[in-house]
Amino acid sequence: MIELTRRATFSASHYYWNDAWSAEMNERVFGRCANRNGHGHNYTLEVTVAGEPDAVTGFVVDLKWLKDVMEKEVVGVYDHRHLNLEVPEFARVIPTTENIAVAAWRRLEPVLNHAGGVRLSRVRVYETADIFAEYRGEP
Amino acid sequence: MIELTRRATFSASHYYWNDAWSAEMNERVFGRCANRNGHGHNYTLEVTVAGEPDAVTGFVVDLKWLKDVMEKEVVGVYDHRHLNLEVPEFARVIPTTENIAVAAWRRLEPVLNHAGGVRLSRVRVYETADIFAEYRGEP
Amino acid sequence: MIELTRRATFSASHYYWNDAWSAEMNERVFGRCANRNGHGHNYTLEVTVAGEPDAVTGFVVDLKWLKDVMEKEVVGVYDHRHLNLEVPEFARVIPTTENIAVAAWRRLEPVLNHAGGVRLSRVRVYETADIFAEYRGEP
Amino acid sequence: MIELTRRATFSASHYYWNDAWSAEMNERVFGRCANRNGHGHNYTLEVTVAGEPDAVTGFVVDLKWLKDVMEKEVVGVYDHRHLNLEVPEFARVIPTTENIAVAAWRRLEPVLNHAGGVRLSRVRVYETADIFAEYRGEP
Amino acid sequence: MIELTRRATFSASHYYWNDAWSAEMNERVFGRCANRNGHGHNYTLEVTVAGEPDAVTGFVVDLKWLKDVMEKEVVGVYDHRHLNLEVPEFARVIPTTENIAVAAWRRLEPVLNHAGGVRLSRVRVYETADIFAEYRGEP
Amino acid sequence: MIELTRRATFSASHYYWNDAWSAEMNERVFGRCANRNGHGHNYTLEVTVAGEPDAVTGFVVDLKWLKDVMEKEVVGVYDHRHLNLEVPEFARVIPTTENIAVAAWRRLEPVLNHAGGVRLSRVRVYETADIFAEYRGEP
Repeated sequence: MIELTRRATFSASHYYWNDAWSAEMNERVFGRCANRNGHGHNYTLEVTVAGEPDAVTGFVVDLKWLKDVMEKEVVGVYDHRHLNLEVPEFARVIPTTENIAVAAWRRLEPVLNHAGGVRLSRVRVYETADIFAEYRGEP
Repeated sequence: MIELTRRATFSASHYYWNDAWSAEMNERVFGRCANRNGHGHNYTLEVTVAGEPDAVTGFVVDLKWLKDVMEKEVVGVYDHRHLNLEVPEFARVIPTTENIAVAAWRRLEPVLNHAGGVRLSRVRVYETADIFAEYRGEP
Repeated sequence: MIELTRRATFSASHYYWNDAWSAEMNERVFGRCANRNGHGHNYTLEVTVAGEPDAVTGFVVDLKWLKDVMEKEVVGVYDHRHLNLEVPEFARVIPTTENIAVAAWRRLEPVLNHAGGVRLSRVRVYETADIFAEYRGEP
Repeated sequence: MIELTRRATFSASHYYWNDAWSAEMNERVFGRCANRNGHGHNYTLEVTVAGEPDAVTGFVVDLKWLKDVMEKEVVGVYDHRHLNLEVPEFARVIPTTENIAVAAWRRLEPVLNHAGGVRLSRVRVYETADIFAEYRGEP
Repeated sequence: MIELTRRATFSASHYYWNDAWSAEMNERVFGRCANRNGHGHNYTLEVTVAGEPDAVTGFVVDLKWLKDVMEKEVVGVYDHRHLNLEVPEFARVIPTTENIAVAAWRRLEPVLNHAGGVRLSRVRVYETADIFAEYRGEP
Repeated sequence: MIELTRRATFSASHYYWNDAWSAEMNERVFGRCANRNGHGHNYTLEVTVAGEPDAVTGFVVDLKWLKDVMEKEVVGVYDHRHLNLEVPEFARVIPTTENIAVAAWRRLEPVLNHAGGVRLSRVRVYETADIFAEYRGEP
């Protein structure tokens, strides 16, 4: 079995805010991230699929197809968007790096796991070069 | 003469919008950057000062001091902010990478050029790893 | 148990082509990679060995020795070569990133797994900064 | 005046060979680069334009337009090609990093210098992360 | 379960030396690393914690808290220090990359594993961009 | 004219200390860098030469030769050394990044400027990814 990984980037805004809390509580917990005007990042999305290389093509998956799936399911939805205000899964869930990794997994898995012989193995999301979250699905 | 450079990063939101234009015109010119909800980037600020190394310390400038100046004058003002909505110089000037480089220069120059024997030589701002603007002041 | 990893790079040419197919079929499946003149990459080879640090030296393996093994078994064989035309394992197997990772594993494993107390744990091959394949051997 | 830079990448094959020399002479001068099967690299093309930011848009040039110019004039011509065999300017000129930088300049300058108020300022080509050539045109 | 990773850097000196050996033996085994004047590196420490994102905050851990723990337990102790001479765990254990990874794990685990619902999952230490050691604790 | 650049790395120790000052004064000015046990860095040396590409080879200089010059004149002298204690030019001059750039220039210039048609154009030294000094010689 081989794992094949492709990276893509998107630029988005977000903020951290819990409506059930006071402004003071939000600022105490979330610090500068609680700024309601939003701030943003260049995110890197790293998608790993696992499978056997096809005996004829040598591909686990066609990397052009994987790029298109990533673009259609995640990058095209998140890029140049305000995650809290424009992406449905973050209407009530705070778009932390952890939650973005889980959300990207849920968007990608139905497509990638029906591609025959391959399965989604790992989603990693970098918020900056120094911070990233990784999700491998539930056992 | 030696040039000494220090980098720092900040994460901010922005959008591109000209109030004198219709929404259609803004979208035609600025594309996805015209989204009024904003989107964001991890910016890298690269500040270069020029001077002679001090004969005793070997420093063109004290790098700790340069870090503090960059933090006080630029990073602390732009980081985790929406540039259009919260930073005065972008109230009427669109925060393109080019304009951010000029604005950072104007914030840094009065401090750095009064530090004795050293002058601000160059400001470079990366919006992503693949796009950057560089300003060297006016002759 | 500790995993110790070392990276090296090589520059090589390749193309994707299946002799059993027509030129049209090759171009439909492989796109620009089907160009028979070849194209190339700066590959990064990342080799991970697992073991216990030696109580006296603190080494899982001597990194100089690991570098020499990587050079002799893989880098020296692939670097500045046309993989399809000059490397035996790619005479009939298409040198995709996936297949290069498996081939490098097969070249490295006999040497690394006879070094006493250490075993080859993982081979990762980057074709570009955004695409990589990883192989951990067969269970 | 501001300098605005954009990067793009292309993957290509090449070799170093002088037809006027014997094989021995070619190998003595060019070493492993003289392999006629070719080898390849992931090149990075870095294009810098200089100008004043437009008072309305804040752009020196539209970065989407610059990307399209780079794609049409250079990346689309060099990517996934064997430079010696498929790119006209390298039929008789060896595609060293230095010569690729000059050739990219010559392809880009006629387009970029007729875009009004902007001029091509610098072309930098990376063959690897550790080797690059830079050209600023002739005075 | 999600894995959340944060990176930090420190700059330190070290040498490789076994007091039980002659100088000749030390030089034969450790090469240039046996220089008793020391040499140094910019190390990167990469700490991964595993847990469930909190339903309210979306955090596996507060990244500001994780940064403070890394600073207090490891970075503040190792940075700008000579590891052999000034860090207790390396008085008798050679500060190889492998041993630094284990030592950082031992410093971090007691704090991170008492933070409720989260556990230290992985410590990776880069000595250079091309060499790193990874430790996941004992089973 | 073309500028051709090559990078190399070396790992070294240093400290900042002025013998004419008290320990307190050294610590006040140099902070943690005044630790007499030394600390270290992975330095990157970036050497740029300027010239015309040779009409036959396409080279400004032979990059293998440039690598050998850099190794012999600088990297082989500084690597795995304590700069203050083992490198003559830093016996009385503090090895700041600025001074290392000037010292590397002085070591390289006599060799590179006698190579016929080429001249040393720029030396850049990175102490970390975020700090670098650049020297272009005296006019």
